[in-house]
Amino acid sequence: MVVGSLGLDTIITPERQVSEVLGGSSTYFALAAGFFTNVKLVSVVGTDFPDEYRSLLAERGIDLEGLEVAAGKTFRWTGRYKEDMNTRITLETHLNVFGEFQPRLPESYRGVPYVFLANGPPEIQITTLSQMQAPRFIMVDTMDLWIDHHREPLEALLKEVDGLVINDEEATLLSGQVSLPRAGRDIMQLGPRTVIIKKGSHGVLLCEDEGCFALPAYPLEHVIDPTGAGDAFAGALMGYLASTDELSPANLRRAVAYGTATAAFACEDFSVERLTQISRADIDQRVEQLRELTSF
Amino acid sequence: MVVGSLGLDTIITPERQVSEVLGGSSTYFALAAGFFTNVKLVSVVGTDFPDEYRSLLAERGIDLEGLEVAAGKTFRWTGRYKEDMNTRITLETHLNVFGEFQPRLPESYRGVPYVFLANGPPEIQITTLSQMQAPRFIMVDTMDLWIDHHREPLEALLKEVDGLVINDEEATLLSGQVSLPRAGRDIMQLGPRTVIIKKGSHGVLLCEDEGCFALPAYPLEHVIDPTGAGDAFAGALMGYLASTDELSPANLRRAVAYGTATAAFACEDFSVERLTQISRADIDQRVEQLRELTSF
Repeated sequence: MVVGSLGLDTIITPERQVSEVLGGSSTYFALAAGFFTNVKLVSVVGTDFPDEYRSLLAERGIDLEGLEVAAGKTFRWTGRYKEDMNTRITLETHLNVFGEFQPRLPESYRGVPYVFLANGPPEIQITTLSQMQAPRFIMVDTMDLWIDHHREPLEALLKEVDGLVINDEEATLLSGQVSLPRAGRDIMQLGPRTVIIKKGSHGVLLCEDEGCFALPAYPLEHVIDPTGAGDAFAGALMGYLASTDELSPANLRRAVAYGTATAAFACEDFSVERLTQISRADIDQRVEQLRELTSF
Repeated sequence: MVVGSLGLDTIITPERQVSEVLGGSSTYFALAAGFFTNVKLVSVVGTDFPDEYRSLLAERGIDLEGLEVAAGKTFRWTGRYKEDMNTRITLETHLNVFGEFQPRLPESYRGVPYVFLANGPPEIQITTLSQMQAPRFIMVDTMDLWIDHHREPLEALLKEVDGLVINDEEATLLSGQVSLPRAGRDIMQLGPRTVIIKKGSHGVLLCEDEGCFALPAYPLEHVIDPTGAGDAFAGALMGYLASTDELSPANLRRAVAYGTATAAFACEDFSVERLTQISRADIDQRVEQLRELTSF
């Protein structure tokens, strides 16, 4: 199960611009997780949300019982990538119906064992969790806004979850540590026993009591659009965990590799384009390439 | 054999400052390579160069026949690291005797099979190579200054060498490519069949015809001083290659791991302090930790 945004993105890269394409954290997550397991989505859209995008998700087997349609407009985001494709500037954010979103989980969602709470206000993340029975593995994402201004509820949330996925700058902000291994260790003290620090094109660092795991990103010669890569990463990771239902350190490492492989596909075209073209076999192959890339 | 600078560094970090400590590319390189093989050093110092630093190198078995003592002062560099320890600002550079350095190789150096030309003017790197018999493996380093303003001799040099070690920003500057795998591939077209792109705390990317190898940096919780880490990396890498005398892709990967492990030690204290405290066994152990860190 994923709880997160669903929206329409306008994305400007040095090469091209696309307008009002399918975006949102829960979208990327669900499509990526869908390669591995059945996904239940919790989000909200406005009455203007295009039918074709709804169909795209439904056709991929994503359970949309938890997708509310509210009176008003769908969440919209406009962003621009700089020449290096690693630096993103938000030009416009219109939360619209997502701004008032209070997740209400359908009865059939409450017993789901693997839960991902995409970036959102920690207060909402907590009330969402309170509707769940006893999930086996809860992972959350967060961002600078909540770290800076909602620290107390964020820390309360972190005590309740198994995993945190966070980018490098946010990890430093949350922990006060510039060293990422040290940041990971300090964040574990706040609650989550699994801390995953995303470093964009530099890969990912997984921190657990049993030790660290570092995996470089899949080397892409041409990044078209990195939007949603982090959510695709989390989706494939959680989908793989759910499908294998095993939380050993070795399986967490494999899950990170599946996340990394899937995130690389997400960057190869705008919006969710590539994620709708590939198959599980393509992901498996890329995981093997990652093994070959990193073994010595 | 290494040809490069030998100097006195003043280093300011957020935590501390040290003055006129032993530094220079050939110093870090030679000490790191010295764990694996006999090293011949080519450099120049002034008459003010402290005897204790000369003894430190000699005691580690580094051949100093190629270390010229010129009338004048030794090369001095002052730099400051920002809070993130990844950003370095050069405050002062006094080339002194190093500014006029024209390497003249002792007869006993000319048949050395593994040669590293540390960062320097490509014209000087070329005339150094012309004094060698037929080295088996030549690797060079360079920097933005030569890429921007000495492009022609640099390209001539690259045609003559087997390997280039370069940092990420310089790789982009040299190739015009922001994607590092793509930059690596394009730089190979300029001559070197082995291109190694250093990404600081994000690790390293090795590009060869046979494929890429990506290795994260060893996760350090506390970086004291990253000065010389890149040269220690190159030193251990070349020392390992020389000691095994094998240039297969698999052995290049192992050499990169030895370089990475040794570079991490170099960051654990100011100047060459840590490199003079550790043993080959410590490096071997860290290479095994890197294997454990990255395997899945």
